[in-house]
Amino acid sequence: MVRLASSYELTLSPSRGGAAGVYSSLRGAILSGGLAAGTRLPSSRQLASDYGVSRGTVVAAFEQLLSEGYLEARQGSGTRVSKVLPEALLSAMPAAAPQNGSSVAARVSRRGKALSQSPFGTADSLRIGVPFAPHVPALQDFPLKLWAGIAARQARSLAPQLLADGDARGLAALRSAVAEYLGGTRGVRCLPEQVIVLASVQQAADLAARLLLDGGDEVWFEHPGYAGALSVLRATGVVVRGVPVDDDGLDVQYALRRWPNARMAYVTPAHQAPLGMALSLPRRLTLLDWARRTRAWIFEDDYDSEYRYFGKPLPSLQSLDPTGPVLYAGCFSKTLFPGLRIAYLVVPESLVDAFSAARSVTSRYSPVLDQMILAEFMRDGHYARHLRQMRQLYGERREVFLQLLRTHLAGRLEPLDNPTGLNIACWLQGDAEEEAATKCAAAGLLVQPIGRYAVSRRPTTRKGLLLGFASLGLPTIRRAVPELARVLAA
Amino acid sequence: MVRLASSYELTLSPSRGGAAGVYSSLRGAILSGGLAAGTRLPSSRQLASDYGVSRGTVVAAFEQLLSEGYLEARQGSGTRVSKVLPEALLSAMPAAAPQNGSSVAARVSRRGKALSQSPFGTADSLRIGVPFAPHVPALQDFPLKLWAGIAARQARSLAPQLLADGDARGLAALRSAVAEYLGGTRGVRCLPEQVIVLASVQQAADLAARLLLDGGDEVWFEHPGYAGALSVLRATGVVVRGVPVDDDGLDVQYALRRWPNARMAYVTPAHQAPLGMALSLPRRLTLLDWARRTRAWIFEDDYDSEYRYFGKPLPSLQSLDPTGPVLYAGCFSKTLFPGLRIAYLVVPESLVDAFSAARSVTSRYSPVLDQMILAEFMRDGHYARHLRQMRQLYGERREVFLQLLRTHLAGRLEPLDNPTGLNIACWLQGDAEEEAATKCAAAGLLVQPIGRYAVSRRPTTRKGLLLGFASLGLPTIRRAVPELARVLAA
Repeated sequence: MVRLASSYELTLSPSRGGAAGVYSSLRGAILSGGLAAGTRLPSSRQLASDYGVSRGTVVAAFEQLLSEGYLEARQGSGTRVSKVLPEALLSAMPAAAPQNGSSVAARVSRRGKALSQSPFGTADSLRIGVPFAPHVPALQDFPLKLWAGIAARQARSLAPQLLADGDARGLAALRSAVAEYLGGTRGVRCLPEQVIVLASVQQAADLAARLLLDGGDEVWFEHPGYAGALSVLRATGVVVRGVPVDDDGLDVQYALRRWPNARMAYVTPAHQAPLGMALSLPRRLTLLDWARRTRAWIFEDDYDSEYRYFGKPLPSLQSLDPTGPVLYAGCFSKTLFPGLRIAYLVVPESLVDAFSAARSVTSRYSPVLDQMILAEFMRDGHYARHLRQMRQLYGERREVFLQLLRTHLAGRLEPLDNPTGLNIACWLQGDAEEEAATKCAAAGLLVQPIGRYAVSRRPTTRKGLLLGFASLGLPTIRRAVPELARVLAA
Repeated sequence: MVRLASSYELTLSPSRGGAAGVYSSLRGAILSGGLAAGTRLPSSRQLASDYGVSRGTVVAAFEQLLSEGYLEARQGSGTRVSKVLPEALLSAMPAAAPQNGSSVAARVSRRGKALSQSPFGTADSLRIGVPFAPHVPALQDFPLKLWAGIAARQARSLAPQLLADGDARGLAALRSAVAEYLGGTRGVRCLPEQVIVLASVQQAADLAARLLLDGGDEVWFEHPGYAGALSVLRATGVVVRGVPVDDDGLDVQYALRRWPNARMAYVTPAHQAPLGMALSLPRRLTLLDWARRTRAWIFEDDYDSEYRYFGKPLPSLQSLDPTGPVLYAGCFSKTLFPGLRIAYLVVPESLVDAFSAARSVTSRYSPVLDQMILAEFMRDGHYARHLRQMRQLYGERREVFLQLLRTHLAGRLEPLDNPTGLNIACWLQGDAEEEAATKCAAAGLLVQPIGRYAVSRRPTTRKGLLLGFASLGLPTIRRAVPELARVLAA
């Protein structure tokens, strides 16, 4: 204990000794007002003796406090607490060793409210292998060794200039690989220059809405639809209009009648999220015609297009009008793994500069090493091979899953016949979606009510459940479907 | 050439043969209106002969077009172009093989204008070793082998669950390492839970402004100041108020008199960007008092605090009021390398959930592998060691640089005496900042006029140049400073 002229007693904080301890106890006393402005400190010799430390230790602490402006030293008058510190402010400071907890209330702004609610949990690790958690790829079957080998090689090839490669659009090698892949498999016609590498499709939607739309602009959105995009669009201040979907996907005529002046349509034409149907060709053409006539934008989220188990997928909307109003987005979260955090947005040539700038201003660019690894993985054919293997694996799992559903749950769950994606949407007999999900969760079965994908207060056409199958081995599927039947029958 | 009933002549696209070629030429003809709705196609046998391909090839193309809805087949009436396609829309479609170029004008929204202009070049690779490009760390001296070894090891330890680790706040191991580092070196007092891992300080500013402020809210901002943060703040619709800086940093009283109702202050207290002075203790206290009284926020961008060559740096603003209104941000772009793209934001406990949600909604989370590598690098003491080495290296380079400046440019450039950062700001004799920069650029010397960091139209206090030295070896410095003197004298 050190007694000062001001009667403030300093206690060395027990966790820190030496100059740091002396420094922080003096600083704490000054900040809390215990040591008033102008107070003369004891000599360094005296303090050293009181603290039980060497004089050099005290001198070091004094020097730090002098350099920071807490103390001032004048020849002949010793060392004093600085007078330039506004004393009223000092005494208002919280104690130097505050309690845990926060004196700041969680006050977000009006517009921040939408942003402060996420449809994803804070720690949203995927439930790999948990029946029937949707949207989960077979990460147990990811070629980890191959990926690690490429990662090691690419890490060794990092060079000073690569450490600083700051192209906001992404690495040239990756953009080329993506353009080639999209051209070959999705009919997307674009130059590598039109490919913008991003962290997620949500980031793509965020940038598109902030760059191309103003607050209050209307956006057509599938109802039910993809919750992640819904959240981010709403957070940008646009007005989301829920448009029903039927067997042909988004009901374009419905939207045209009600909101012809919308400035964007957000669609998942390959595999409607969450129900799975494709947007029909006539509707695609009507949608494109509307966008061209009204100078609106189409955001094509090519959701789960990679997984189709019969027939070839419809080419992208973008392929119907490659120089038109389509922004085409996709990502590697479900085809490779979510923690890679790489997505892409193909934009019209006239918008490349604007999107590059927007990416650069808001978050600069994607990490270099991940892009290098992915570029090699794609260039050397591993990506195409992995997709083929997963398609086959998922196709088998889906087949078994569907058979068992029909055997055990006929009359209760009616699977929609959309041979795409990682999930199967099923209509549910009766209305009790949420109750069904609750009963399932109690039995360790994670089914998702379709109603949770609702966009507006109008009810979605029918009640249903979304069931994931892709990450489930056949033994799990064989065990879990009868269990699901028992739970739903109870 | 294939002659059809509609007299439309199909040409196989030369780049693609087989079913894909037949498919795309038929589809192109339908989309362009050349093949009208209802047109009956020749038999597959006939088409095969015309195209010079096998009948199976044509059948495969037909099947694809049937499944996509372009064609319809009825027993007895052969295969026809689908009638459900709205013909008016079809003929409005662009030609199947569009010219390169875009029919879409670059029309960004009103609010998008700010977002479509970036202070960074599109391909903003750092000019490593180019005199005197500012903001460039010594990437030539980065421990590439060490990093690659850790990357290889971490890549091998990737497991299925890690591939999907989706904690929006970042990997727990990295958040702990950052919290410990900030506590030890910057006096930041926080729990690992308060650390949000992000891609950049700009992303932190973007989220903070969107979450905590509304459009039209005022933000104090240093003038001159950090251009990247300025751009992103303006893009969120807040009103940025340029506040002059002097030897004590941001002139808090100036701001208090003019804009007392601002909702945020964006400050670089450790090393004012770009001039380099520290924010004085009295001003820190006044700033904190204002924020507490008015429930405003302080965004502390702890810019270049890691590099201080004499004395210890002032602890962070956050350390003065750890449960108060400070959001504390920093990044690894200059201490490790920019392509890592990892930054951190320490938020009050009451805001952790809101920031997690905002991160999750707008871009989900940071890539997993990079976080794993960095966590090991920090945990094993490599980060602290690297900082020490760089501090010593930069300190030597700075010393030599300053001596040469004084020798060769006395009376022309007056270096500000702020012993921090990767750059030295110098006042320039006379007003011709931009002319000086232009002359230098012609000689391969990249100096940055201070005026380019201007925030408002009011002139900054004095004209000057920003000169980077950290990435320059001593021989380069010895050669380039006399050259700079010659150019500026010319």
